[in-house]
Amino acid sequence: MTGDRLADLRGELHQQAVEGVIIPRADEHLGEYVPARAERLAWLTGFTGSAGLAAVTQSRAAVFSDGRYVLQLQAQTDGARWERCHMVDEPAAAWLASTGARRIGYDPWLISEEGLKPYTEAGLEMVPLPRNPVDAVWENQPPPPLGPARPHALDVAGRASSEKRAEIGAALKAAGHDAAVISDGASIAWLFNIRGHDVPFTPFALGFAVIDQQGHSTLFMDGAKLSPETRGWLGNDVEIAEPCELAGRLALLQGKRVRVDPNASPVWFALTLRAAGAEVVAGMDPCLLPKACKNPVEQQGARHAHARDALAMSRFLYWLTSAVGTETEMSAATRLLALRAELPGFRGESFSAISGAGEHGAIIHYRVTPESNRAIRPNELYLIDSGAQYEDGTTDITRTIWTGPDAPSALVRDRFTRVLRGHIAIDRLIFPAGVCGQHLDAFARAALWQIGLDYDHGTGHGVGSYLSVHEGPVSLSRAARPVPLAAGMILSNEPGYYLPGSFGIRIENLLLVRAKEFPQGGRPFLGFETLTWAPIDRQLIDVTLLSAEERSWVDRYHARVLGLVAPQVDADVAAWLHRVCAPLEG
Amino acid sequence: MTGDRLADLRGELHQQAVEGVIIPRADEHLGEYVPARAERLAWLTGFTGSAGLAAVTQSRAAVFSDGRYVLQLQAQTDGARWERCHMVDEPAAAWLASTGARRIGYDPWLISEEGLKPYTEAGLEMVPLPRNPVDAVWENQPPPPLGPARPHALDVAGRASSEKRAEIGAALKAAGHDAAVISDGASIAWLFNIRGHDVPFTPFALGFAVIDQQGHSTLFMDGAKLSPETRGWLGNDVEIAEPCELAGRLALLQGKRVRVDPNASPVWFALTLRAAGAEVVAGMDPCLLPKACKNPVEQQGARHAHARDALAMSRFLYWLTSAVGTETEMSAATRLLALRAELPGFRGESFSAISGAGEHGAIIHYRVTPESNRAIRPNELYLIDSGAQYEDGTTDITRTIWTGPDAPSALVRDRFTRVLRGHIAIDRLIFPAGVCGQHLDAFARAALWQIGLDYDHGTGHGVGSYLSVHEGPVSLSRAARPVPLAAGMILSNEPGYYLPGSFGIRIENLLLVRAKEFPQGGRPFLGFETLTWAPIDRQLIDVTLLSAEERSWVDRYHARVLGLVAPQVDADVAAWLHRVCAPLEG
Repeated sequence: MTGDRLADLRGELHQQAVEGVIIPRADEHLGEYVPARAERLAWLTGFTGSAGLAAVTQSRAAVFSDGRYVLQLQAQTDGARWERCHMVDEPAAAWLASTGARRIGYDPWLISEEGLKPYTEAGLEMVPLPRNPVDAVWENQPPPPLGPARPHALDVAGRASSEKRAEIGAALKAAGHDAAVISDGASIAWLFNIRGHDVPFTPFALGFAVIDQQGHSTLFMDGAKLSPETRGWLGNDVEIAEPCELAGRLALLQGKRVRVDPNASPVWFALTLRAAGAEVVAGMDPCLLPKACKNPVEQQGARHAHARDALAMSRFLYWLTSAVGTETEMSAATRLLALRAELPGFRGESFSAISGAGEHGAIIHYRVTPESNRAIRPNELYLIDSGAQYEDGTTDITRTIWTGPDAPSALVRDRFTRVLRGHIAIDRLIFPAGVCGQHLDAFARAALWQIGLDYDHGTGHGVGSYLSVHEGPVSLSRAARPVPLAAGMILSNEPGYYLPGSFGIRIENLLLVRAKEFPQGGRPFLGFETLTWAPIDRQLIDVTLLSAEERSWVDRYHARVLGLVAPQVDADVAAWLHRVCAPLEG
Repeated sequence: MTGDRLADLRGELHQQAVEGVIIPRADEHLGEYVPARAERLAWLTGFTGSAGLAAVTQSRAAVFSDGRYVLQLQAQTDGARWERCHMVDEPAAAWLASTGARRIGYDPWLISEEGLKPYTEAGLEMVPLPRNPVDAVWENQPPPPLGPARPHALDVAGRASSEKRAEIGAALKAAGHDAAVISDGASIAWLFNIRGHDVPFTPFALGFAVIDQQGHSTLFMDGAKLSPETRGWLGNDVEIAEPCELAGRLALLQGKRVRVDPNASPVWFALTLRAAGAEVVAGMDPCLLPKACKNPVEQQGARHAHARDALAMSRFLYWLTSAVGTETEMSAATRLLALRAELPGFRGESFSAISGAGEHGAIIHYRVTPESNRAIRPNELYLIDSGAQYEDGTTDITRTIWTGPDAPSALVRDRFTRVLRGHIAIDRLIFPAGVCGQHLDAFARAALWQIGLDYDHGTGHGVGSYLSVHEGPVSLSRAARPVPLAAGMILSNEPGYYLPGSFGIRIENLLLVRAKEFPQGGRPFLGFETLTWAPIDRQLIDVTLLSAEERSWVDRYHARVLGLVAPQVDADVAAWLHRVCAPLEG
């Protein structure tokens, strides 16, 4: 070890006989949030963004990220050592091919089979490395997380793990697959009704599982995470094994058809299974769809969690009215967190809040830092996108507030009202079974499109049940997967509009997909039940732009907020709520 | 020949040493309309529907079609000899596999590479036959059509064929393809600026072409179709060859990369090229997209053709007011055809008109026959979907009329108004470049979806320029291809609602996709220009269901119809138009 991390890594490449390497920001579960141990990209390059990858050869090195992180990438990495690239405009595969290096190493635990494709298609020889080359040179690398896995009780989970396992087994049987590999943190948590503390913001107890047609399962998890109580909860039908036993167990699947998700699982599984003589069948993680369709207990949990979250949001928005000029983006986010922490069942934030005043609101993935922190000033827009993990549900809400005391400009009101119209259009939709996210996304945008405007993010994402705040397989976006919306799914509805350097607007509620009955019967229809209840800033609404139906939606929504929240909050908050939830005028 | 067609065919299968055969309804260009010679399915089975296929083994025989043709299939085929199957519920590939037959013959000229896949995936050995087994036993089979190919003049085509060929050549070069095969009738007509008479309703001069990176082209077409004038029009840069020379010419492409459309071209091309040592690259017919984006002259032609067509439609709808009770579905269609035939540039119908009164209107693809023909009666809905080929453009319009004299029921007005709201929603859309048909389709349905209703067809299809009334690659439907809408495309906008056994409603205009400018600039946006002008029956509109914007759309639309048509028609038609185009009341 020279202490020069890049030099040390290059030495390791030499030892492992490859000409280059890719270092993605990923752990062995390929999830959005990763444990400290897996922050190899940050350790190597300094770059801490949530999407990124380094590519290193003996003579060159580059860090790749996307449009969100252009400035951060420049600020955090050393330009003398690192080329900084846009992963879409200049993909790492093309960059590597251009270096002349051919044998490129990778850690097969940190990339999926699909993720590997661009590299092989670029003509590179991709070499799975027996040991991660960063781990080999990273002194004081944090250990794997060992937070205890805890039971997720039936009164919030709604269905016994044994039932879920039997259902997954039956699905495998129907598909003609002998077994499936499960590596996604959320799938492990859902399938076994356990929760943990292994990554930020999401209560994963990380592990792997193999499940067969009878629902027989082996859970590969560090035994230190499993208390006797949790072992008892898992029951005798779940075999517990150490992660290091995985390769040996997979070898027993010789001759079997084993489903591996080519997008969600590390390619290590496919490589290991094929080497053992198993037939690898590409297929979606079998937990993905049943997990996305919340059962009635989870649905009721979501309603309860959102009803409590509504108290924190109303208290926060009331507090904000007297905080303008004195408080900051950071102190406001802290305040909201404190208000949520008082609520029963609170387990933490579901993501790092986006608290952006004025021009910061236009940065779609803004994360306030001590350096960027600024006061929330009068007469500007303030955008707060935040959420919480409760034991009965996960929340995610965005409100955009005019700080006053003057009235907002006509332009700001026009843009806000168009975003609101898009939000209402999605909320009111009724649609037949079979419709997918890409068929609905445009309803959120049509009012902006009419004047040549748009926003550069999806309209909505799936949300878990005391699990990931971003959950597949369904989303509301133009590029959504061809998986239809189904009853029980929870989706965000968050159209926005951003004027860079000036302001950002976003209005986000969570929606529950529900079956919709009609007297004539016939084909099944679906609609949305609104889960999120917090005032939408009336100062920002241009009533003349709303149709009668839209106006009525706003008034009904505010009446529900008032009825739900006012009886449970202090008199001053209730009095304020009565004002901001009054029917629209004019 | 025994005179027993099925027995003769089986004898031929025996001779060609296959255990079964598929007989699709298709010609060598895989288009929607086929010459009489290619009506092999009808000759063999009696079934004349536009979508179908027969599968025959030595012991069993089946005819397959889709939901539209269930009754017709029963009526036209002999149940003692033919099993009748739904091609979606019981695909021919599965049926054949279930017979135990393994070696299945097919004519490689009549099916695409993609079309063949379900058969090979079902485990069948698909054997390309050197001669079509129906042709071998069909005495008095009609000869190939030999209508003259005529120049499509520059004042309607808008761009010289040489320019188009150079553009296609450049596109091939950019894609790294040495040449492309063109087999689609519309592509041949567009690329060489020729039109012909080879199939009903569409002015194809059928042929094939091979084009290279320099735009050098060989047109394979029966010399009898090419007059000295047309040969002169094609010019010296287009080499003419007989279709029988195709195999020999393709053999010259040994070692070259040749693009073949796996959906649009017969698999014969891929088989022949591969046998000759060429590399077949799957790719979209390179004419498809440039043909779909009409040039300014074609756009102006479309406006002119529609303005003339509007005269026939208004005269027809006026005539209809005094025809109820005395005229029939058939005589009405004949009348409309006669009114169109008077117009300059008329070349024929663009498809067989759908003229359906009352319950017949609910049959989406209804074609009136002498047996089904019935009077148009008072107090019912009458649906007429028709179109024409003019030398400057192709039209396609549907109107649904209340025959009176009493007022329509509230239910009928509600359904009509919801269909109209969907029609208006599409017409008014503005959207950014990159949006595809599947992102917009739902706007046409949302008003019906709100009460649990829908319609079982796409919202719109592409339309050619004095070419196919159904043109790819873009459509408005949930399953549309991922090809974005682009300026110059012409699409139909035809939402509907059908109550089987009672009535059908459809409102169809054609739309031209146009660039939309906004003062702030930025990303390119698109919108629609309405091309079709004919009154929408005001008796059927429930004004209380319309928003202010929708109401204003109807009034503006009718004002345009009135301004365009009234000055050009007789006084009685004009007076009627003034009434039916008046602003909405109530």
